Amino acid sequence: MARSIYAKAGVDIDKGNQAVNKIKHMVKQLGVREIGKFSGFFPLKEKMSQPVLVSSADGVGTKLKIAFMSGKHNTIGKDLVNHCVDDILVYGAKPLFFLDYIATGNLEPDTVSDIVSGMLDGCIENDFVLLGGETAEMPGFYNDKEYDVAGFIVGIVDQDRIVDGKNISKGDLIVGLPSTGLHTNGYSLARHIVFDKLKLSVDSVVDGVPNPIGEELLKVHRSYLKPVSRLVEMNLVKGMAHITGGGFLENIPRVLPDNLAVRIERVWPVPDIFNFLCQKGKVPKKERYRVFNMGIGMVLFIDKNNLSNVEKELDELNEVYYLMGQVVDKRGKTSVKISDTD
Amino acid sequence: MARSIYAKAGVDIDKGNQAVNKIKHMVKQLGVREIGKFSGFFPLKEKMSQPVLVSSADGVGTKLKIAFMSGKHNTIGKDLVNHCVDDILVYGAKPLFFLDYIATGNLEPDTVSDIVSGMLDGCIENDFVLLGGETAEMPGFYNDKEYDVAGFIVGIVDQDRIVDGKNISKGDLIVGLPSTGLHTNGYSLARHIVFDKLKLSVDSVVDGVPNPIGEELLKVHRSYLKPVSRLVEMNLVKGMAHITGGGFLENIPRVLPDNLAVRIERVWPVPDIFNFLCQKGKVPKKERYRVFNMGIGMVLFIDKNNLSNVEKELDELNEVYYLMGQVVDKRGKTSVKISDTD
Repeated sequence: MARSIYAKAGVDIDKGNQAVNKIKHMVKQLGVREIGKFSGFFPLKEKMSQPVLVSSADGVGTKLKIAFMSGKHNTIGKDLVNHCVDDILVYGAKPLFFLDYIATGNLEPDTVSDIVSGMLDGCIENDFVLLGGETAEMPGFYNDKEYDVAGFIVGIVDQDRIVDGKNISKGDLIVGLPSTGLHTNGYSLARHIVFDKLKLSVDSVVDGVPNPIGEELLKVHRSYLKPVSRLVEMNLVKGMAHITGGGFLENIPRVLPDNLAVRIERVWPVPDIFNFLCQKGKVPKKERYRVFNMGIGMVLFIDKNNLSNVEKELDELNEVYYLMGQVVDKRGKTSVKISDTD
Repeated sequence: MARSIYAKAGVDIDKGNQAVNKIKHMVKQLGVREIGKFSGFFPLKEKMSQPVLVSSADGVGTKLKIAFMSGKHNTIGKDLVNHCVDDILVYGAKPLFFLDYIATGNLEPDTVSDIVSGMLDGCIENDFVLLGGETAEMPGFYNDKEYDVAGFIVGIVDQDRIVDGKNISKGDLIVGLPSTGLHTNGYSLARHIVFDKLKLSVDSVVDGVPNPIGEELLKVHRSYLKPVSRLVEMNLVKGMAHITGGGFLENIPRVLPDNLAVRIERVWPVPDIFNFLCQKGKVPKKERYRVFNMGIGMVLFIDKNNLSNVEKELDELNEVYYLMGQVVDKRGKTSVKISDTD
C-alpha cells in the first residue's frame, strides 16, 4: 500500500513518482504524514463505554464514465468519500478515516492528483482524515485514460448509540433529505438513455434541464453528516436508509423491521434530470424508485412526537426536508408503497 | 457497499443475486452477519492504554493475470489478505478486520465466490474477520472474465508498542524470513519474460523449476503473523520491512533511520523461479532486488544481544530464517548494499 508504484515492465516509474509527489504535497499540507509507509496510523481518542468501529467499502460505479467523457476528475473522489460517509452515518457513526484504491492502465499524474484532490475535499468537508491509499498501474487492465476507484471508511459509534431501526414502529414518520442528483447510482441506465439512445454528448443542453447533461450527471453525491449527526446527537432518529443502488425499494427494507412497511407520497419536487431520464427512457414508475433516488438521498424514521423538534433543528441548519410518509403494518410482501401521481 | 449489486442497463441482476447468496452462505457459516447492510460493525474489546488503529489498502497487481490464465480464482483473495496483514504487522499491529472491493465487467457468481473464499481462507488463517465488501459489476470497464480486487485492513496496536524502527542502530542484525515465491510483486516483468519473450503457457514445465510455471507464479503470498507476533510480544524486534513492490532497495529504507544503511549478504537459497526469471530475462543484479523479493518476504531488525532469543523462538515455531546482514553507518547515498556472488 502507501502509494508505492512498482517498477515493472510497461510501467513508467517516473510518472509514478510524479503522481506520488503531487499527492504527498497535497497531503502534507493537511498534516497527514504516513504516506510512503506500509500503513497509516490513527490514534483512538474517543471516550466511549463500548466503542464500535463501523466500516464500509465502496466504488462509484459507472459514474466514472461521465468523468472520463467530461475530462473532469476532481469530483469523483468526493463522490466516493461522501458515499462512504453516508453509508456509516445511517448507523449513527462518525467518520474517523478513509483510504482509497486507484487502479489505472496507464498512470497520468495529473489525473491521479485530481482524483485524490476530490477525496481530500470530501475529507475536509466531513472533517476527517485521508489516512492512505494505493495507486496501482496495471497495464492491460483498463482502457487508455480510464481508471477505477474504491474507497474504504472507518467510523465509530458507542454501542448504546447505534441507530439500527429496531425500534421503528407503526405510525413513525418518514423525513426525506434531498439528493443533489443521481449521486452514485443509476448510471448504467442513465448513460444508456443519454448516450446510446438519444446520442447526446456531455455538452448537450436539453429542454427542461438547467445545465449541460454532463454537468448534471457529475453533480457530487452529497454528505448528510451535518444535519444527520445533529439529529442523532439529540436522539431524534430511530433509523435511516441511504438511498443508493436499489433505490427506495431495496434500501428502505434494510432498516425496516420485518413486520412493517412504509407508505410514501411523492411530495418533493423531483429534480429535472430524473424527469428527463424517466420520460426519454420510458422508465416504468416502479422501476424509477429502484434505479434512481428520484431526488431523495437519505430517509429518516422519526417518532411522530419528535416531529416539531426535528423540524426545529433542520430549520436552524437551513436544511431542506420533506415529510414524505409513514410506517404502517405490512400486509403481503410489499415493504415500500409509493404514491406518485405524476 | 455491502454486496449490493445494482439493477442497471447491461447488468444481470439474477447473477448478481446468485453471487451475493453464495457469499452470504459462506460468510454466514463464519458468523459474520452484516452482509446486506450499509456497513459492517466491529466492537472494540482491546484494553490498551492508547489504542492506535493501523490501516492499509492494497491490490494484488497483475498477479491477477496469472489467475485469469490459469482459471484459478480461489487463491488471489488469500494473497490480498496476507499482503494486507503483513503491511500492518511491520508496525506490530494485530489484524482486526478486512473489507474487499471486487470489480468486474461481467459478474460470474462462481468466480466471485471463489475470490471471496480465498479471502475467507486468509482471514481464518490469520484469525480475524471479513467484515464486508463491495462487488461492482461495471460493463465496459474490464475485459471479459477479468476483474480487479482491492483489500482494506484495520488492525490495532498500543501506542507504546508500535514497532517503528526509530531505535535501529549500528550493529543491529538483520533476520530474513523466506517468501513462498513472488508474493504480489514483479508480475509485469515476470509475465513479460515468461509469456511474451519465452512464449510459455501456464502449464509449461521448465528445467530447474519444480512445478508448472503457472503454479509457481500463483503461489500464495504468505502471512508472517505467527512468527512475527511472537517476537513482537517478547519485544525482540526493533523494526521490520515487508518486501513488496520496490524489493529490498525501496522497502528497507522505509524503516531505516536516515543516517544508517544495511549490508546484506545473499546467504539464503534463492527459489528456483527467481533464478529462472533472472537468467532468462537477463535481469541485472541490482534490478533483481528492486523488482523481486528474491526469496525473502519479511526483514527483521534485531539487537545483536537478542539473537539467541530470536533464534530460540523461531526454532520453537519451526520457522526457517536467515541471518542475512547488519546495520552500518551510511556513507554516501546508498542505503542498501547487497553482496550476491552468484
